[in-house]
Amino acid sequence: MVNILNKTISRIKPIDKEAMANAQTRQDNLTKPQGSMGILEDISIRLAGIQGRTIPKIERKAIITMAGDHGVVAENIGNWPQEVTAQMVLNFLRGGAGINVISRQIGARVIVVDMGVATRFEVDPRLVSIKIAPGTRNMANGPAMTQEQAIRAVEAGIEIIDAEVEKGLDIVGTGDMGIGNTTPSAAICAIMTGRKVSEVTGRGTGLSDPQLKHKIAVIEKAISVNKPDAEKPLEVLSKVGGFEIAGLAGVMIGAAASRVAVVVDGFISGAAALIATAIAPGCKDYLFAGHLSTEPGHRFMLEHLGLKPLVNLEMRLGEGTGAALGISIVEAAARILSEMATFSEAGVSEKEE
Amino acid sequence: MVNILNKTISRIKPIDKEAMANAQTRQDNLTKPQGSMGILEDISIRLAGIQGRTIPKIERKAIITMAGDHGVVAENIGNWPQEVTAQMVLNFLRGGAGINVISRQIGARVIVVDMGVATRFEVDPRLVSIKIAPGTRNMANGPAMTQEQAIRAVEAGIEIIDAEVEKGLDIVGTGDMGIGNTTPSAAICAIMTGRKVSEVTGRGTGLSDPQLKHKIAVIEKAISVNKPDAEKPLEVLSKVGGFEIAGLAGVMIGAAASRVAVVVDGFISGAAALIATAIAPGCKDYLFAGHLSTEPGHRFMLEHLGLKPLVNLEMRLGEGTGAALGISIVEAAARILSEMATFSEAGVSEKEE
Repeated sequence: MVNILNKTISRIKPIDKEAMANAQTRQDNLTKPQGSMGILEDISIRLAGIQGRTIPKIERKAIITMAGDHGVVAENIGNWPQEVTAQMVLNFLRGGAGINVISRQIGARVIVVDMGVATRFEVDPRLVSIKIAPGTRNMANGPAMTQEQAIRAVEAGIEIIDAEVEKGLDIVGTGDMGIGNTTPSAAICAIMTGRKVSEVTGRGTGLSDPQLKHKIAVIEKAISVNKPDAEKPLEVLSKVGGFEIAGLAGVMIGAAASRVAVVVDGFISGAAALIATAIAPGCKDYLFAGHLSTEPGHRFMLEHLGLKPLVNLEMRLGEGTGAALGISIVEAAARILSEMATFSEAGVSEKEE
Repeated sequence: MVNILNKTISRIKPIDKEAMANAQTRQDNLTKPQGSMGILEDISIRLAGIQGRTIPKIERKAIITMAGDHGVVAENIGNWPQEVTAQMVLNFLRGGAGINVISRQIGARVIVVDMGVATRFEVDPRLVSIKIAPGTRNMANGPAMTQEQAIRAVEAGIEIIDAEVEKGLDIVGTGDMGIGNTTPSAAICAIMTGRKVSEVTGRGTGLSDPQLKHKIAVIEKAISVNKPDAEKPLEVLSKVGGFEIAGLAGVMIGAAASRVAVVVDGFISGAAALIATAIAPGCKDYLFAGHLSTEPGHRFMLEHLGLKPLVNLEMRLGEGTGAALGISIVEAAARILSEMATFSEAGVSEKEE
């Protein structure tokens, strides 16, 4: 235990500055005014650093969507029955959910993982079954999971991304499903960014004002009962986290170790990114933010991570949908650097000085 | 003359409210919290209205990139030699430009049109040759073109989109190429939005402070020499417009008449949209804004048009690159509405009231 995690962290290398310099030179010689592709140019340069080559490729794409249930639903912090987590897992497997639709459009495979859903599933070869436990415990009364469970969940995430890298992978998007999981995500956000719980807690799937007030009180209680130490990310994860959040943190750390770019989805994946970058600061340069969620805490997460969202379409679905849209932007950036003609190739005159 | 234009304007119908209501009902029954796909949901509803069916499709896609030269380059308002317009047209035909790259990614065909490039091209079946004239006249000294030329250019745009509709088309993105064309676009922006020239004029492909000041003075001179009447959009177009801008306005009007959604690119296409919606207000509901350009006037154009940009990646290339990225967002919206399972199809429980 912790061996896989520590070994993986030690494999994370800084992004390749030489590849980035070469990519910048190529970018500046493409048939367009320098800088005119804006953020796409910046993305392409960082991708070169991530992949360690002047011309990065985004061809083999995957979304890893991790599901888990949350004991804190006993506190009535949401409007949806817990069984929906499992029902949506089946919807993912049948290809009928939002993430399936956008993944088909961008040509990404979807890996569905049961990190800890409260329902028992029939055996299905398409479902990766980790199930650390049938849902976390209620964090309002004590730790959501043991520290051992937290580490096992992170390491499962590492093993899952390692297996995908083995199959061939240029970019991965993270996704989540878990009724109640904006509650642990808001708790993690408050602890790791130092913001007030009331600033970072949102309406999730659609709470009324009194329901939102109650949700904030439950999160404040969970923090005061558990007293997580922001300097100890695995402790934060075990006390107020979730199995899917832990698994996604593992995916991010493992992807960075294999020089695979990660597009982080919204609020729940953002919570995982706060944990992952606290455990392994070196993974930060491998992350892109897919989109800006309407959950109010998300912008504080992105500020803390130093990431700018690639799209902002007022989405709040999760599953990896924002990550999938972000992947299409990252792919455009890679293609521009790879496929555009240079001035000399195209016989186009350059700017007059 | 003017017959094609007037006939086309009379073919523009309001978007279909019944299809929109049906699409909204379907959207609300998909397996996600209502509204959780944010702006994608709004896009899908408007698309239903545009196409006049509950489940719109975005499968057949085209980018129409129109090129033209500008007599106002004689005033030294830019840093690039005029020959680059023609050189880039050849780059488009060979597939080496930014718009070719992103169009390949999204599966859109690219139609390249010479609306009025100053260079004579070899005959090439891939190039649509309209060439109203070899560049406009210098608007700082008088009208950029005759009113007759303006109408011919708009009507050429209508004929080009009509031919594409004939081949099969669900969505079109507009694009431009023309050294100097941020100058007429800023003039049109100032006139049509009522903003000051200094507010809406930007650095184009990269002007210094004194060059920017000079560009503003040239535009102010063109407006004071020509005295265009904002109430007469064809007059504005002829006095301070460009052939590619006129053609793109025709594309927008023609697309609306055939119930084809239009994704408007950045600043130059935005100028065309100001003209198109002034000539034919009914076409406004058929337009989407692909992206927000870094040209300072673009946000005023979008405010005036009542459009929110689909992406904001600090781009300023033109060619239709922002429109192409926007098309991929519109396609995601259409696919969500079309391909996602409903609650009853997927056996997923709904929200508790």
